[in-house]
Amino acid sequence: MQVKAGDLLEKINYPSDLRELSEDQLEQVCQELRQYIIDVVSVNGGHFAASLGVVELTVALHYILNTPYDQLVWDVGHQAYGHKILTGRREVFDTNRIYGGISGFPKRSESEYDTFGVGHSSTSISAALGMAVASHYKGEKDRQHVAVIGDGSMTAGMAFEALNHAGIENSNLLVILNDNNMAIDPNVGALKDYLTSITTSKPYNRFRDDIANVLLKISKSPDALTYKVVQKLEKSVKGTLLKRSNLFESLKFRYFGPIDGHDVKNMVKVLRDLRDIPGPKLLHCITTKGKGYALAEKDQTKWHAPGLFDKITGEIKKTKYEKPQPPKYQDVFGHSIIELAEMNPKIMGITPAMPSGCSLNLMMKAMPTRAFDVGIAEQHAVTFSAGLSTQGLIPFCNIYSSFMQRAYDQVIHDVAIQKLNVIFCLDRAGIAGADGGTHHGAYDLAYMRCIPNMTISAPMNEEELRNLMFTAQQDNMGPFVIRYPRGQGVMVDWQKPFKALQVGKGRKICDGDEVAILTIGHIGNEAVKAIAELNTEGYNPAHYDMRFVKPLDEELLHEVFSKFNKIITVEDGCIEGGMGSAILEFMADNNYQAQVVRLGIPDRVIEHGEQPELWAECGYDAKNIIAQVKNLAVSQNTHTIAS
Amino acid sequence: MQVKAGDLLEKINYPSDLRELSEDQLEQVCQELRQYIIDVVSVNGGHFAASLGVVELTVALHYILNTPYDQLVWDVGHQAYGHKILTGRREVFDTNRIYGGISGFPKRSESEYDTFGVGHSSTSISAALGMAVASHYKGEKDRQHVAVIGDGSMTAGMAFEALNHAGIENSNLLVILNDNNMAIDPNVGALKDYLTSITTSKPYNRFRDDIANVLLKISKSPDALTYKVVQKLEKSVKGTLLKRSNLFESLKFRYFGPIDGHDVKNMVKVLRDLRDIPGPKLLHCITTKGKGYALAEKDQTKWHAPGLFDKITGEIKKTKYEKPQPPKYQDVFGHSIIELAEMNPKIMGITPAMPSGCSLNLMMKAMPTRAFDVGIAEQHAVTFSAGLSTQGLIPFCNIYSSFMQRAYDQVIHDVAIQKLNVIFCLDRAGIAGADGGTHHGAYDLAYMRCIPNMTISAPMNEEELRNLMFTAQQDNMGPFVIRYPRGQGVMVDWQKPFKALQVGKGRKICDGDEVAILTIGHIGNEAVKAIAELNTEGYNPAHYDMRFVKPLDEELLHEVFSKFNKIITVEDGCIEGGMGSAILEFMADNNYQAQVVRLGIPDRVIEHGEQPELWAECGYDAKNIIAQVKNLAVSQNTHTIAS
Repeated sequence: MQVKAGDLLEKINYPSDLRELSEDQLEQVCQELRQYIIDVVSVNGGHFAASLGVVELTVALHYILNTPYDQLVWDVGHQAYGHKILTGRREVFDTNRIYGGISGFPKRSESEYDTFGVGHSSTSISAALGMAVASHYKGEKDRQHVAVIGDGSMTAGMAFEALNHAGIENSNLLVILNDNNMAIDPNVGALKDYLTSITTSKPYNRFRDDIANVLLKISKSPDALTYKVVQKLEKSVKGTLLKRSNLFESLKFRYFGPIDGHDVKNMVKVLRDLRDIPGPKLLHCITTKGKGYALAEKDQTKWHAPGLFDKITGEIKKTKYEKPQPPKYQDVFGHSIIELAEMNPKIMGITPAMPSGCSLNLMMKAMPTRAFDVGIAEQHAVTFSAGLSTQGLIPFCNIYSSFMQRAYDQVIHDVAIQKLNVIFCLDRAGIAGADGGTHHGAYDLAYMRCIPNMTISAPMNEEELRNLMFTAQQDNMGPFVIRYPRGQGVMVDWQKPFKALQVGKGRKICDGDEVAILTIGHIGNEAVKAIAELNTEGYNPAHYDMRFVKPLDEELLHEVFSKFNKIITVEDGCIEGGMGSAILEFMADNNYQAQVVRLGIPDRVIEHGEQPELWAECGYDAKNIIAQVKNLAVSQNTHTIAS
Repeated sequence: MQVKAGDLLEKINYPSDLRELSEDQLEQVCQELRQYIIDVVSVNGGHFAASLGVVELTVALHYILNTPYDQLVWDVGHQAYGHKILTGRREVFDTNRIYGGISGFPKRSESEYDTFGVGHSSTSISAALGMAVASHYKGEKDRQHVAVIGDGSMTAGMAFEALNHAGIENSNLLVILNDNNMAIDPNVGALKDYLTSITTSKPYNRFRDDIANVLLKISKSPDALTYKVVQKLEKSVKGTLLKRSNLFESLKFRYFGPIDGHDVKNMVKVLRDLRDIPGPKLLHCITTKGKGYALAEKDQTKWHAPGLFDKITGEIKKTKYEKPQPPKYQDVFGHSIIELAEMNPKIMGITPAMPSGCSLNLMMKAMPTRAFDVGIAEQHAVTFSAGLSTQGLIPFCNIYSSFMQRAYDQVIHDVAIQKLNVIFCLDRAGIAGADGGTHHGAYDLAYMRCIPNMTISAPMNEEELRNLMFTAQQDNMGPFVIRYPRGQGVMVDWQKPFKALQVGKGRKICDGDEVAILTIGHIGNEAVKAIAELNTEGYNPAHYDMRFVKPLDEELLHEVFSKFNKIITVEDGCIEGGMGSAILEFMADNNYQAQVVRLGIPDRVIEHGEQPELWAECGYDAKNIIAQVKNLAVSQNTHTIAS
């Protein structure tokens, strides 16, 4: 459904059109842009509240900056819908996050206005600093470089690393701190409180002026002692406190603000002024996530990405099912960890800023002293868990698979080398869906499998997830990975009693002949579907659920390789170095010979779309498995041994 | 050679012995401890300057804390020699970093006083916070938790993530900032300047008292306007500046210091006081790296880990060679990047705090505007490089292989997905030597190989390194990994003209029959040695240097698999998912059948030792290769195809 843009907005194809308008017209542009986002997202879905919060900032930036020559980097990119609409993508905005459509994040291949591809948090300052240093090197003195970063993203270590470096580079860099007190969930940590303390005290710059005035006044005091002390004080205050009293000024940034991020006129004025100030500077903008849509302002987590909704009533549209549906793996995790923690006082829960996404919010509510949201801080989350584990506790550290890449060293260095009992629940493993290439949990089996001391597992359904969680929380299990996908499982009746599984043991799903299918995790259900279909056509492949990628079930594999010489491996993960490769290693080490077809995510970046669409594209949905079985059943080995 | 400890030190087997002494005796303990470190390190080697700098801190901590009940985490651990000597390891300290001896870093398996295994920087606050939160949960109210972290380590993002979380946990955590202005090289960045500004201004707490006193005085002023402003000022200053004027106080830590880290008596007093203050607190200690050894104080980078030396003259002992020696790969990198940068103005150099270790210091000196030390900040280093690359520049981002684990997400998310031209030089790839398990670059081939768009290469010698660097800096090569080991290559005459290599093409080193050896990188020279020996015994294996792990040279592999069905792969990296696995994938995808023996780092944590010692232990030095060839030459396939 094509949504109509407002009168001004429909004439803005590029920022150059925006710049033709008078400043007085900008408020109307903002209004129309906000409405357009509401209109389109309500019927197409996508991220919502973040973009509403930066409408004025977006308009002001493109009005003042000479984009795309001037360079604008959006951190994460959930908030960049307005930016996309103003930079040539208004007409295709209704394809946002849809298979074959535009990406939900800025992306270099999509537009020259998207200076840097984003998705994960806190990369913007580093990237913009790189651009600024490059401009400095090339002598492009007038070129502006702006990173827009939220207060949530600012808690991640890499933002701090970038500030620490930027502070000593004399580059033309403006960091805009978009302070809305939120990540997807409410922002947490000391920095948040600090920002609030700045914001709720008097405007910072005026406060500094006040001090200066009073000092000037007092310095004329007749009292000799006071005079002397005040002189010292003035020197110190000016030298230390005034220059360095602000956290960002401590890091050699010039700090401006806080200013109202919804006052577009003032924002235009401030940005124009800042353009002429060289060196690293930070503008602190206060915004409201969901601004302009009352319900979203009120419940910002819910409206971060609400799905489809009725924009008038605010009713979120839910698919109505005739019969009960299987739960999401996330809900299974969220409920099961509480059940387990009630039985085992050693269990703790840790999430880096994804409590509602991974459902640890349930435990945070039920057991507030045992569940921690540590902020957007995957590295800390892992090593904090390691610290807990040294004291005999058993932390479930729940991190999205693609975000775990941020804490890879901590997994190796702080957990695996020390064989600590930390359970890593890798949520969003495999194809993640509409978030696309940056968010697919494609690599975890490969990057975890090479680490010593790791146990790596994946449940094929809800019951298996519960049993793996139960198994992992037993004493002395060492580092234990449980990976599962985003979304629904397959069992309506899932809340069965816990059962301990044997580590490194897979299971036979069905016997068969000629071809064996080895699967890991939820994607095994595609093999189940495939086999049901194949059976009707006279094909009878066997199916084994490996359950564990490390350690491999060698007994089971000996059985398989003794019986079959045509094997298909299926995984919702990269084929280079994944479970299929582990099987090949077993085969080589044991000198078996067989035809092995490995299905999984191919060696390229997979874009966004629904999971089933992408499984099909990658060649490992039921349909593709059927084709592979048939193909293999008739094939002959094409190469023979040379000598 | 057994070194004798001083009179007091030789009676201190454990901290409990230390605590028997009077405070007046501590200075002598410090003197003896310092001398003991000098005596042992001068004849055994190891890290030097860091431990000398914290002698007083170490003694004071173990004197005041009830270790091991109280928990002490040393960041990185280079500075923990004094700690090791005082905690049961004085007599074995001369085995430090030697194969089979004690580790150069704290290690949980070595002592209950080593609460957390370290090696990589900036983990200590997260780990200690985990311990503190666990104690809080268990109701251990009196238990102390201390992280000792250098100002260099404080620049890494994960330290900031930990502070941000610790600030809101009401746990018993003391962070001791060991501020010596150094990492291995001089510390860089805005934080360093900030710490210096605190240190050079008046003592911070007295300064705060001054302000409070003056405000009190002025508040009695008769002038009404001044009075009013001062009242407001007082409120604001107390509410904002005083409470939050310090960077660490911004993050809700109570800040103490700076204090002289070499005044052991005062340190004892301060630590005793701090023990009774609950919540997160930070003590800022000023120390001198190399303290007490004049030469080390003067050139702290050189004396970070000087090797063996004459402790009287300070002369560093160098092995004298009769003939010219091949250079270190590090030197080849350092000189070659300058040569290339002189030809190609797009080239930039980036290192996260390892300029002297990787030899980028040469370029930083020769071309200061084009080479950057960004601090201990691997994540930022990679994304900063990505930012440079978006502007058409070609950054060589040089990071030790095991430290690259810190920036894994940035490699995927910011470089590979966007196909940016960033060259990753992975120094210390493979077995790293005396630094041990935390520092071996064991996993890089596996964790890089699964990433799309990557080119992954490794030079077998100096000339190949130069040619790979030349190849990588050409336009549009995309993300390009060059991995090479720590230490010497094999070519005395290495400075040959640059030559472009074809990406994804290996080379035949020698023809042969029956067995083919496929190697990657420097370890190929062990195969060369092995074959020379084997030839004298009538074995003639062929040898191929793959040069690239990704893309694989498929043409060459077709040649190999057409001719050979007994194959040995050799890599100085983990066998799970490494080059050998890539070969197996090729074999499976092309339906070849052969016996493949994969040699590489086995699936366990390898401890410290000399590289050749560890290659032997891992089974891929020349001697082991010889054995494998002989073994394979006589073997028959043991399993046959099932049907």
